[in-house]
Amino acid sequence: MEKSYIGVDVGGMSIKGGIVTFDGKILYKSTKKTDAKLGMGTFLKDIKNLILDLLENAKSLKTSVKAIGFGIPGVVNTEKGTIDFATNLYMENVPLAEYLKDLHLPVYLSNDANVACLGEAKFGAAKGFKNVILLTLGTGIGGGLILDGKLYEGNEGKGAELGHATIVVDGISCSCGRKGCFERYASASALLKYTKEEMLNNKQSLMWDFAKGDIENVDGLTSFECAKKGDMSANFVVDKYIKYLGEGVLNYCNIFRPEIILLGGGVSNQGSYLIDKVTAYCASRNYGYKGTPKVIIECASLKNDAGIVGAAALAMEREGN
Amino acid sequence: MEKSYIGVDVGGMSIKGGIVTFDGKILYKSTKKTDAKLGMGTFLKDIKNLILDLLENAKSLKTSVKAIGFGIPGVVNTEKGTIDFATNLYMENVPLAEYLKDLHLPVYLSNDANVACLGEAKFGAAKGFKNVILLTLGTGIGGGLILDGKLYEGNEGKGAELGHATIVVDGISCSCGRKGCFERYASASALLKYTKEEMLNNKQSLMWDFAKGDIENVDGLTSFECAKKGDMSANFVVDKYIKYLGEGVLNYCNIFRPEIILLGGGVSNQGSYLIDKVTAYCASRNYGYKGTPKVIIECASLKNDAGIVGAAALAMEREGN
Repeated sequence: MEKSYIGVDVGGMSIKGGIVTFDGKILYKSTKKTDAKLGMGTFLKDIKNLILDLLENAKSLKTSVKAIGFGIPGVVNTEKGTIDFATNLYMENVPLAEYLKDLHLPVYLSNDANVACLGEAKFGAAKGFKNVILLTLGTGIGGGLILDGKLYEGNEGKGAELGHATIVVDGISCSCGRKGCFERYASASALLKYTKEEMLNNKQSLMWDFAKGDIENVDGLTSFECAKKGDMSANFVVDKYIKYLGEGVLNYCNIFRPEIILLGGGVSNQGSYLIDKVTAYCASRNYGYKGTPKVIIECASLKNDAGIVGAAALAMEREGN
Repeated sequence: MEKSYIGVDVGGMSIKGGIVTFDGKILYKSTKKTDAKLGMGTFLKDIKNLILDLLENAKSLKTSVKAIGFGIPGVVNTEKGTIDFATNLYMENVPLAEYLKDLHLPVYLSNDANVACLGEAKFGAAKGFKNVILLTLGTGIGGGLILDGKLYEGNEGKGAELGHATIVVDGISCSCGRKGCFERYASASALLKYTKEEMLNNKQSLMWDFAKGDIENVDGLTSFECAKKGDMSANFVVDKYIKYLGEGVLNYCNIFRPEIILLGGGVSNQGSYLIDKVTAYCASRNYGYKGTPKVIIECASLKNDAGIVGAAALAMEREGN
């Protein structure tokens, strides 16, 4: 019987799971709506029901599930199999692995950006590279690290918090308690903030038309789409965003000197328009160091299935495959 | 016959080498004065002569040298065994491994901070820890990384440039071509700069006495020693230095979440006075993230022999020991 792995992508409003083969193919996929606000009991039950459904389908598909992997939007303890702290789930100290004990399958969990990076390295845009960094540009900035071919997670699995490195000492306050964190300057939230600030500075900007005259309609597209049409204010916003993103990317070039840095999350939907600008910013600064090998900057490629495939990839790696 | 490894610590004015056992004991040590300014030919010959002397002594000591490791103050290519770029040696593209081919021994090289970190992890202050970061606080800031128990060097061995991550976007210009690099704010050179600036602000400071009235006498001790005596200006300098050092240390806590961060280089001679202040700075900021495990901050312990022992440790690791 063919071996497979279950990958579960946990979110605050839905839990997505899939049965994934060795080569990253999803045999079966299922989504369960949930509401993390209802508390840990309901949430854990929803997760277990989703997995029971997947296991039932694995039988029909004549595949043998070897382990379950989870991508968690928060801080986990990889050794204990607990979710220690997850703002978006409104939860702390969730004993996930313990709760799933009676399934009699190995359960592994990691941060969602970590598993997404692993998925990209095994099956996506970073396939074949030894040192890979993923930056997910969303509400914050998540980070994932593949170093010397293996997922690097740090003590208790709590490393790779690449959004929480200060790039501006005494800069903007961050939810983590520090000031000037990278994610305060280069997340999708930062982009929205720059967009709104500039719109208030220039009421003539095309961005007002794009937002139908209401600043509440501003989203991640507003500045980029108007910049493409030549709007000066929009270009100012995009250039400002690229500068901060570029500085963070250059930092990670120098710290890790990876072969490739992937950009994921909402902002990465800008594709080559974004990549070309970040690459040009970094190249013009010689990647920060003389004679160092080029770092490829690319978009993550697994998109919507990244969470499922990445979580399954975690289970594969942990099982030694 | 007992196995041993040669470790060579390369500097611009002297080359230090030693025969090192498995357990990090130096059996024999030798130093050769050189002058990198005389060029590559003389320099390479001096290195070879030092090694021939060491090999001769290994015979008398009845130990069998298995490999040679080098710590290089600059950018190397670990795969090719070349020194690509080393400002302090006034050299580029030095084919070191190729030149030593006729010794018929495996030759390995890495950046000096990398090998020092490896030495500390195998035989020094970080013994027994899985994830270790070394920051050497000297003219610049060197970085070394032990991740999941192994030396991490990045593509071509050109990673771990921990001094060249921007902590102040648009900050002070750095020799690397970027602005606001960590080493511009927390190296020994930065400490000297802060000291001199503050002395010019306050002609009454005790630091003037300590420097015998001549600002050219300022060194790494000036501010620290006068701060211990209660001088306000000196305390201002030390606090400013600790703040920037602390911000960089917190960044590396969040990026790597190691078990321990070691401080080496001249500034680390301040010992527990320095460590207590940096630890307090970081602890008051909750190490940047809720619920994360503590990171120990300590001084490197191998001191003067760190280069030799570390370079030998590199040879051991590369040979699979």
